Amino acid sequence: MTISANPVRGTRDYLPKEMRLREAMQNIILNVYQEAGFQRIHTPILEDIERLDKSDGGENLNLIFKILKRGQKLDLTKENLTENDLADAGLRFDLTMPLSRYYANNRAELRMPFKVIQIDQVFRAERPQKGRLREFFQCDIDIIGDESSRAETELIHTTAKALKALGFTDFTVRINDRRILTGLILTAGFQPEDVGSVCITFDKLDKIGAEGVKKELLEKGYPENVVEKFAGSLLAGGISDLSAAGELCGNPEAAAGLAAIMDRAKTLAAGSYNVEYDPSLVRGMGYYTGTIFEIASPKFKSSIAGGGRYDKMIGKYLGEDIPAVGFSIGFERIFEILSESEEIPFALGKDRLALLYNAEDDFIEVIKKAEELRAEGYAVATMVKAKKLGKQFTNLEKDGFLGAHILGEEGIKIFGARE
Amino acid sequence: MTISANPVRGTRDYLPKEMRLREAMQNIILNVYQEAGFQRIHTPILEDIERLDKSDGGENLNLIFKILKRGQKLDLTKENLTENDLADAGLRFDLTMPLSRYYANNRAELRMPFKVIQIDQVFRAERPQKGRLREFFQCDIDIIGDESSRAETELIHTTAKALKALGFTDFTVRINDRRILTGLILTAGFQPEDVGSVCITFDKLDKIGAEGVKKELLEKGYPENVVEKFAGSLLAGGISDLSAAGELCGNPEAAAGLAAIMDRAKTLAAGSYNVEYDPSLVRGMGYYTGTIFEIASPKFKSSIAGGGRYDKMIGKYLGEDIPAVGFSIGFERIFEILSESEEIPFALGKDRLALLYNAEDDFIEVIKKAEELRAEGYAVATMVKAKKLGKQFTNLEKDGFLGAHILGEEGIKIFGARE
Repeated sequence: MTISANPVRGTRDYLPKEMRLREAMQNIILNVYQEAGFQRIHTPILEDIERLDKSDGGENLNLIFKILKRGQKLDLTKENLTENDLADAGLRFDLTMPLSRYYANNRAELRMPFKVIQIDQVFRAERPQKGRLREFFQCDIDIIGDESSRAETELIHTTAKALKALGFTDFTVRINDRRILTGLILTAGFQPEDVGSVCITFDKLDKIGAEGVKKELLEKGYPENVVEKFAGSLLAGGISDLSAAGELCGNPEAAAGLAAIMDRAKTLAAGSYNVEYDPSLVRGMGYYTGTIFEIASPKFKSSIAGGGRYDKMIGKYLGEDIPAVGFSIGFERIFEILSESEEIPFALGKDRLALLYNAEDDFIEVIKKAEELRAEGYAVATMVKAKKLGKQFTNLEKDGFLGAHILGEEGIKIFGARE
Repeated sequence: MTISANPVRGTRDYLPKEMRLREAMQNIILNVYQEAGFQRIHTPILEDIERLDKSDGGENLNLIFKILKRGQKLDLTKENLTENDLADAGLRFDLTMPLSRYYANNRAELRMPFKVIQIDQVFRAERPQKGRLREFFQCDIDIIGDESSRAETELIHTTAKALKALGFTDFTVRINDRRILTGLILTAGFQPEDVGSVCITFDKLDKIGAEGVKKELLEKGYPENVVEKFAGSLLAGGISDLSAAGELCGNPEAAAGLAAIMDRAKTLAAGSYNVEYDPSLVRGMGYYTGTIFEIASPKFKSSIAGGGRYDKMIGKYLGEDIPAVGFSIGFERIFEILSESEEIPFALGKDRLALLYNAEDDFIEVIKKAEELRAEGYAVATMVKAKKLGKQFTNLEKDGFLGAHILGEEGIKIFGARE
């Protein structure tokens, strides 16, 4: 009996032609990031289970893949076993918690501001659905150790530049500040301890609409007059003016800071993308402390990039707060958009040639000829010449080969040039 | 109280300077592989637990990180719980089993011979020790669908080319054939069902010596005359002549095939590396069916690359055998060797410049100047100019910067050129 060959639910295989696109995407993003002075690091996929549990990861904490203890550490005879008895590690669900741990662990070797790139896999046990994988890549840049809003400016500029290099044009950077959002929630009459819960509901505005948000808040038991006041200001989009929002929430300084970030972003965009204040922007994670931002494209229903400032996270590992802000490109969303587009606006690796030979040819001569063609800049795959050469050519062209050379004959047959 | 910032036992963080080396290594390897007509694929890190358990992975089966079931699937109230009740997935321990599953799953989209690259992470819960990580990268090339030994030739040639591109010179390709090895074990008088167990012991020859192997075989209860005969032929290195080994084991065809592979490899090496028949080469995995090979370097105690033919593995998923052979570069071993060497024989990314400015400067002007320098080909990191400029320069040089530009001043200060 054969064993099933399907990948684990919620994960997928990538075909060579998909990998060509993914590799080109990654190279473009990485090049923009590195050119901008960011440096790549790598952290383990495995993380300590307690660390993951204490990470303010919001809803993601319910989506952690946990690793079974091994050897004598796994005691199945214990009564009333809990998951904590069974697991000692888990797979990271984002790259921000590992980065904060990394900074605390390696601080002696790092200088501030630390401008860092992470392009790596994360894991979330989400209900599988189109465009939502359990194992996927994120592309993050972060600046650690710069409390000034120049860090936000640089992240927005660099992320936008990467998106433009990927061929995206008409996107919008939406900005908010958690301090303004929190201030407006408190002004409506909610208690400080309710802010997190209100944010979780408010974050669903795109999905369930203003009425849905009101309904859920009432169901959560908040007073009707408070919910109405909240609806009147934030839900109705009444605070679309940033300085008015700053006054209303009692934090005009935060509003002025956000206005300065937006001004600089607009100047650097020079019309190539939009920058907007979005009073309803929440971002799910519990760890954001200031500016939050995301990028929306008309090509995709949800955001294609997102991030924000998290000045209190590294302190949990270091015992001392260090300012930090990050921006993450949704690699899988970009891949989904590009793999469904008619034309890819960038090159996908080297031109590929097939070197066709007869099985009885001296294979040393085959390899030597292949190396000659490789020295000319081609990627060259050797393969036995089929009896039906026309069909072989058709298949090779379908597989993305530029052309073929037949051992012992002259020149290269370019497929596109065939009559 | 702060949370520990240490990575999970057996895993590690990589600093920016380490990542520069790792990225350059990966680019070099990938470029050689792609130029040789291989194509990259990607499979999930998560694999089905049953599939892992049934994979002939030898000792690695005891080193699988298992993933706890989630939600209602995890029933902790059941009596006599076993690991199988608790886990439904695991982390892959190599890239060969996932590739075989991948080929069976995607066969309709793939053409033979399928020449494939995998550069990805694998996980093994080994006892942590120097140079042995629980989470590490492998770089594999495989050829699926070519039963001829041209596949072996191409893999050896391409892997050796990648090692040469990484600056390795005086390495040795050691070759054997599982059919010859098995034949010699049977000729000594072992039973067919003992071959696997004898191989596991024989594989320890490097570590425990000929006497240690004899001792372990006797302890396993094999007859003394059989063990002695085995020691007389294989352990004493008596069968260093390939054609004699072929005669003795009753499979002269396998020996002739191996001789042809070696001849071609030597011709293509043209003296740039050594090729040797190694009758004591075993390779741990249970799935090899024919040629096996590894590469040894005087710079490292164990092999730096290894692989072989596994013609029966894909059939487990497809219900039909497909010839397959692969070669894997030990990325972490190469990294260990290179990171300890005085000089790296290849370039590590773009030249990096620091663009220094005063906090009160217009940050738009800072970014514009940075973009000018980036357009000249530099990677440019912006940062505030320190009061002690000399110390800042020293630190920047230590961090690998080529030089600095101070906003508003002329030219670039190249650190190496300082008096």
